[in-house]
Amino acid sequence: MLKVILSGIHGRMGNAIVNIAAERADLQIAAGVDLVDAPRADGIPVFASFAELAVSGDVIIDFSNPSGLAAMLDYAVRTNTPVVLATTGYSPEQETMIAAAAQTVAVFRSANMSIGVNVLSQLAETAARLLGNDFDVEIVEAHHNRKLDAPSGTAKSLAKAVERGLDFTPEYVYERESRRQQRDHKEIGMHAIRGGTIVGEHEIIFAGRDEIITISHSARSRDIFAVGALNAAAFLADKESGMYSMADMLK
Amino acid sequence: MLKVILSGIHGRMGNAIVNIAAERADLQIAAGVDLVDAPRADGIPVFASFAELAVSGDVIIDFSNPSGLAAMLDYAVRTNTPVVLATTGYSPEQETMIAAAAQTVAVFRSANMSIGVNVLSQLAETAARLLGNDFDVEIVEAHHNRKLDAPSGTAKSLAKAVERGLDFTPEYVYERESRRQQRDHKEIGMHAIRGGTIVGEHEIIFAGRDEIITISHSARSRDIFAVGALNAAAFLADKESGMYSMADMLK
Amino acid sequence: MLKVILSGIHGRMGNAIVNIAAERADLQIAAGVDLVDAPRADGIPVFASFAELAVSGDVIIDFSNPSGLAAMLDYAVRTNTPVVLATTGYSPEQETMIAAAAQTVAVFRSANMSIGVNVLSQLAETAARLLGNDFDVEIVEAHHNRKLDAPSGTAKSLAKAVERGLDFTPEYVYERESRRQQRDHKEIGMHAIRGGTIVGEHEIIFAGRDEIITISHSARSRDIFAVGALNAAAFLADKESGMYSMADMLK
Amino acid sequence: MLKVILSGIHGRMGNAIVNIAAERADLQIAAGVDLVDAPRADGIPVFASFAELAVSGDVIIDFSNPSGLAAMLDYAVRTNTPVVLATTGYSPEQETMIAAAAQTVAVFRSANMSIGVNVLSQLAETAARLLGNDFDVEIVEAHHNRKLDAPSGTAKSLAKAVERGLDFTPEYVYERESRRQQRDHKEIGMHAIRGGTIVGEHEIIFAGRDEIITISHSARSRDIFAVGALNAAAFLADKESGMYSMADMLK
Repeated sequence: MLKVILSGIHGRMGNAIVNIAAERADLQIAAGVDLVDAPRADGIPVFASFAELAVSGDVIIDFSNPSGLAAMLDYAVRTNTPVVLATTGYSPEQETMIAAAAQTVAVFRSANMSIGVNVLSQLAETAARLLGNDFDVEIVEAHHNRKLDAPSGTAKSLAKAVERGLDFTPEYVYERESRRQQRDHKEIGMHAIRGGTIVGEHEIIFAGRDEIITISHSARSRDIFAVGALNAAAFLADKESGMYSMADMLK
Repeated sequence: MLKVILSGIHGRMGNAIVNIAAERADLQIAAGVDLVDAPRADGIPVFASFAELAVSGDVIIDFSNPSGLAAMLDYAVRTNTPVVLATTGYSPEQETMIAAAAQTVAVFRSANMSIGVNVLSQLAETAARLLGNDFDVEIVEAHHNRKLDAPSGTAKSLAKAVERGLDFTPEYVYERESRRQQRDHKEIGMHAIRGGTIVGEHEIIFAGRDEIITISHSARSRDIFAVGALNAAAFLADKESGMYSMADMLK
Repeated sequence: MLKVILSGIHGRMGNAIVNIAAERADLQIAAGVDLVDAPRADGIPVFASFAELAVSGDVIIDFSNPSGLAAMLDYAVRTNTPVVLATTGYSPEQETMIAAAAQTVAVFRSANMSIGVNVLSQLAETAARLLGNDFDVEIVEAHHNRKLDAPSGTAKSLAKAVERGLDFTPEYVYERESRRQQRDHKEIGMHAIRGGTIVGEHEIIFAGRDEIITISHSARSRDIFAVGALNAAAFLADKESGMYSMADMLK
Repeated sequence: MLKVILSGIHGRMGNAIVNIAAERADLQIAAGVDLVDAPRADGIPVFASFAELAVSGDVIIDFSNPSGLAAMLDYAVRTNTPVVLATTGYSPEQETMIAAAAQTVAVFRSANMSIGVNVLSQLAETAARLLGNDFDVEIVEAHHNRKLDAPSGTAKSLAKAVERGLDFTPEYVYERESRRQQRDHKEIGMHAIRGGTIVGEHEIIFAGRDEIITISHSARSRDIFAVGALNAAAFLADKESGMYSMADMLK
């Protein structure tokens, strides 16, 4: 049975992973790491940092935030424990750090852990390749009213997928109210809807001459990210060093 | 048969009105007014200004732009000809001018001439009244890639309808990318999608705790505005002085 | 503190209500009634029938199924306990029984307990009244792949709301594949999408000449029905005999 | 300049093609074939059948209906004129006839002539391949209230694209109202919305555990089919014998 170290265990996604893992026979959460080192009713041991972590595991899932990255990667490299990174918003220095760690240990990265969003990303690239010269692209995402960042990491990652299909470099436009100007074909409008408890909606619009293609994903619970992260952990556990993505897993 | 003076006859909406009017037995386009005073293949006389207009009519439809307002209202008041205003974007001074003219002559105003958008406006007000305290409101519009202004006049007018149903004054938010901050309940997010040849889409989202209500309108050709403007002209022709709106006509 | 008798306590909605009630200070689940009279970890006493119910309450919430109706109404009338009916699919005889009980005790009925669906119902009636003569109406619902009945009770109830706004009696059409025939304006197409774990989507389409109005509701968790049922119970507890609906509560 | 023979010239699509062709410098409509052999104001000669056709062309576009197929293919084979088939609903015998003709002359076939729908078809196949085992598939189309057949030829063709991505043979379900039964994973629900003047909407839904992917196409005018048919004609004019599809043209 695969033993998972869960970084960010007390967060909303951490709890979702603990619950989904409890339903699975192939893996278990062996320990948590969390700045808030409160004990848990379910008895899973929690450590305040990777330096203090006294339980070994087969793979790390990280749903915390970028601040603890260096310590976690040190631990992963030192103990040769593969790591699933489910956090976004790294600095360029941290990106370099991640690439360096992947020389020694297996690292899985995805801006969004759901299967559906990753399929959407593939479809977006294909559609951009086939339609990008004649159709205008706009991306709309919607999330709950407590989300701080906009656009979402997933929306940015979908924009990158679109870019891979285009033969020009797009300019991202986040608002049109302050200027009075026609849209240039090379623009991609980005729209961030916020309201209620929406888990996550992403839509990519290709608008052409008298026809519109839309591809969209709707997440209906955070469980899909927990399921995806655990699947990624199972996939990664026996892999050689290197960078892995959802695309590798979907194959 | 009702004789219509069409201001802005050479524009895209002007041409749509001429075509739709040709199918109707109850009215005809007697003359056009347009800065571009090019003659027309269909023989309708065109004048460069209301000062030069040498044909009388029963009602004016204005699909030009705000710059010619003063001369048109002078003419309307002087000749007691009712006027349908289908243009948006007036200055506060022009708003005062319109109100003054309506003391003498019948004036019909609508930010959007389609029946559907005006029904949407009523639904938006009702929904805001019933849901506004517990649900967050966001408005999304989409138009073709040549449109200069954003958000559309219709989106602003729908926002006003929502406001009438709320018991607080909303703050409009046009982008979220530059700040990192939770949404306040009193905000209304406004999103302007631009692409292809989209005639006009408007959507009002009410996002609450685990449920979302969406009301939307999709215009599939500019003819709906032409039909609405001609219906408004027929409705207005025999009216007393005063301000009239689509709500009066829907009754 | 309001004491609630919960009929159907072991069902999916019964459990949702127990969880939501635990968060509220104004009411508590005093007892459950369920054909499956298994004891509960949370200590709430469960009885196999209303005949055996040995705990008194201020109001009944029924999320079971139509088979137990007669016994429940007997109990409600005999003990003068108001009852919230959250079940659909009653026979004509049962409808008569409900009407008779409401002569003596307060009865609340709604095909769907969410605020949002009930607002949608009001909007649908208004839109049908304003657009019904010129626009064609179609209703689309989507639910999870385990749902047995189609269309959903909520879709039928929305259709009734549309009917109240029309000045003709519509004919419901459930499929078009077997006939080759133009749509009659008096038809209402009903479409039941089934897939995945979809909690409940309802959409009413008004399609006219070159314009479309759509009003829709998306339920993102079953909690919204639990919240609505508990609110209805609190609303009903001190009411006189009679039939009550979500419209009474929304006022 | 490419000379096009247009079969079905008096129909709605025939007229759209004549108008779009008039804007192009690379081709012209040399003659029409139509059961209704009324003369045209634009001077294009019209013949009542291919037997009577007295004008030669470089390529045929067929937007008529299956009844004239045999005579048209005879002509195409005899005169070695490539043919673009934009009609659907052929019998198995006619399918054989088409395959036989393609041995001698170039034949282009597409259930839908728009670029967008053909891209949608590719995306649908990819999505079905990646998601088909875990997600349920449903297809929804919407068309104007005069359309006789349901589901649309395009919806059926999209279903075929989905089938190519699945590793099982689906069962198509056109209504759920008459049975009371859980959805089987191998079913594909087909829904035909009819209303107003809708040109053509197609949507493919992949509904999984707590997530939904939707890919859709919206046609906003019939011009897109005319543009596509003329592009296909230009593409086909110099091709060897064989069957060609939009996928060949998109490459």
